[in-house]
Amino acid sequence: MDPLYLDYNATSPLAPSVKEWLARGDFFYANPSSQHLLGKAAKKEINIVSQFLKAQFDLSTHGLMFTSGATEAINTFCSNCSRQTLYVYSPIDHPCALEQIARFENSVPLVVNEDASLNLKESIKAIKRTNASDIFINYLWVNNEIGVVWPLEDAIELKKQTGARIHVDGVQAIGKLSEVKLRDELDFYTFSGHKFGALKGVGFSFLKTETKPMILGGGQQGGLRSGTENTQGIVSLKLALEDLNKKFDAKLQQEFINNLRNQVTRLLKGRGEVITSEKMNLNTIYFVLNEQRSDFALAMFDQGGLAISSGAACSSGSAKESHVLKALKKKHTMNGLRISVGPCLKEQEVVEIIKRFEQVLNSF
Amino acid sequence: MDPLYLDYNATSPLAPSVKEWLARGDFFYANPSSQHLLGKAAKKEINIVSQFLKAQFDLSTHGLMFTSGATEAINTFCSNCSRQTLYVYSPIDHPCALEQIARFENSVPLVVNEDASLNLKESIKAIKRTNASDIFINYLWVNNEIGVVWPLEDAIELKKQTGARIHVDGVQAIGKLSEVKLRDELDFYTFSGHKFGALKGVGFSFLKTETKPMILGGGQQGGLRSGTENTQGIVSLKLALEDLNKKFDAKLQQEFINNLRNQVTRLLKGRGEVITSEKMNLNTIYFVLNEQRSDFALAMFDQGGLAISSGAACSSGSAKESHVLKALKKKHTMNGLRISVGPCLKEQEVVEIIKRFEQVLNSF
Repeated sequence: MDPLYLDYNATSPLAPSVKEWLARGDFFYANPSSQHLLGKAAKKEINIVSQFLKAQFDLSTHGLMFTSGATEAINTFCSNCSRQTLYVYSPIDHPCALEQIARFENSVPLVVNEDASLNLKESIKAIKRTNASDIFINYLWVNNEIGVVWPLEDAIELKKQTGARIHVDGVQAIGKLSEVKLRDELDFYTFSGHKFGALKGVGFSFLKTETKPMILGGGQQGGLRSGTENTQGIVSLKLALEDLNKKFDAKLQQEFINNLRNQVTRLLKGRGEVITSEKMNLNTIYFVLNEQRSDFALAMFDQGGLAISSGAACSSGSAKESHVLKALKKKHTMNGLRISVGPCLKEQEVVEIIKRFEQVLNSF
Repeated sequence: MDPLYLDYNATSPLAPSVKEWLARGDFFYANPSSQHLLGKAAKKEINIVSQFLKAQFDLSTHGLMFTSGATEAINTFCSNCSRQTLYVYSPIDHPCALEQIARFENSVPLVVNEDASLNLKESIKAIKRTNASDIFINYLWVNNEIGVVWPLEDAIELKKQTGARIHVDGVQAIGKLSEVKLRDELDFYTFSGHKFGALKGVGFSFLKTETKPMILGGGQQGGLRSGTENTQGIVSLKLALEDLNKKFDAKLQQEFINNLRNQVTRLLKGRGEVITSEKMNLNTIYFVLNEQRSDFALAMFDQGGLAISSGAACSSGSAKESHVLKALKKKHTMNGLRISVGPCLKEQEVVEIIKRFEQVLNSF
């Protein structure tokens, strides 16, 4: 049985436009810093992508930086803080944000409700209680595990109330929200190409606040991020986004994901629960089984033709307690599983997922 | 006229094997940290490449780290030093190594002879004179500008005499030395995929000495370098190296580059000089014109169908004084140019390069 790939929050297959482009062969291989015509042709491609991204995300107030991906970007922004900066993170954040805590002498978590939504009022109180004046907040816009969406309006309110610099982790936004509308009030935005169909090893960030480079060297990108620009990766960003612009139908996707979530909820009745919140993205269904550990259950789903996830696809290995479930004060913290679908779900796919899902559940 | 690409030290076109593989389409797109079968298939590919690299470079004493490229690697190793570490660099090094000086309170340059070879004796003296005990040396094995080769034996002697940790920048070694034989006495080795035909945005380092991560996050690569592994890039490393293993004929390449260097020297007589040393690599010819600034000359060569370089392909822009020529105490420090050919030079190509080279010189 061909597996259905339902792990788009871990990474996406290449967009068809990217595959076609790769198949066509040679592409602007010269170093974009070289001064001959071939180098300038590569440079021009990068400029075209820069213009495209600035237009697509309509952030004239912000600069643009290409990176090797979101992990590098978050490390860059955190390494720009001093050890005395107050670091504010989400307790249900990606490990990458949690690992940054070690850089800081002082940190405080945002306050999260039991449905994974942000408790804005209590979060502001918690930050103010520290009396810190130099504050950096890592704001997870769309949660990679649960799929809960924290509105940018809340981030703006956090900024107003605390004066913090705010980094918006938008890694799970593209192809997973009906609209990816960035707000110029916030300081930094980060995206990773491989989460929406571009090549791996490339990402981009928008930044308003002055930033020192973490990676020093040849002075590429105005000195902000040295290292030969990954022209191939950068071009793939544009191709993958253009694909989505053409094909992503948010209304249809909303219908399908609602249907899928309802069916999964129905099938799990008495055997587990789906964690949902008022504001959810368009591709993620996180559920907890009452009796099966996630490593065991994942293997069963995998055998049953559903490639799903048991947690952030990182170092992993065997089942660990989920820091997300723990932070949400759930029971069964070893038993969380995630379905994350592609941006162009089809009705037939929903039917097939549900069929296989039921078969696997019945086999336990 | 189709330009002849003679800027392989800036970056290489994709190896034929990589292009063919890209054209074939889908490849292990899943996240190698995912626990389903698709994720494990991606993980397996990475393991195969790791085994291949360890066998190819025969360094059983060292660990392996995949990076986004050499610039990241050098930053990682330098950020592992304390500000009090003595930083030893080459005055004719790549800007990436020179930019690291700012990280350190104390630094000292290696002593370089006028032919760009290393003055080992004076270098050891210069380091010992500082009385430093915690020493980190960035050792540029094959110079990106001049093509001069500094033997690893000299690095080993530096280590013996000073107790330094030594990072060997091997970025310009692959496909440019008759043999890339790493020595297990030295601490770190760094390579960049795009310099030998792999995709951009991926590199690898070997490391013996314990290293803290610069990029924290999901804990990939045993915590050494977080961020989703760039499976596509990593696989391309193996494909490009296998291509070279098959096609690179060092003896033939030596013959052709000698011929090319002799001809260029002959044509430049009275109008400039080729900078050479006893130990040279197999692809680089660096020359200085007496009367033409490099930005002007580069444009002329470019129009004449020779895509050459006027210095390290980095931030660049208009002609600057070459720090390399300055360190070598040359006149005409604005007038340096570099020819860097591919690893499989053909006789017909040498003839064509010389023909065009002469035409351009005559047009000045």
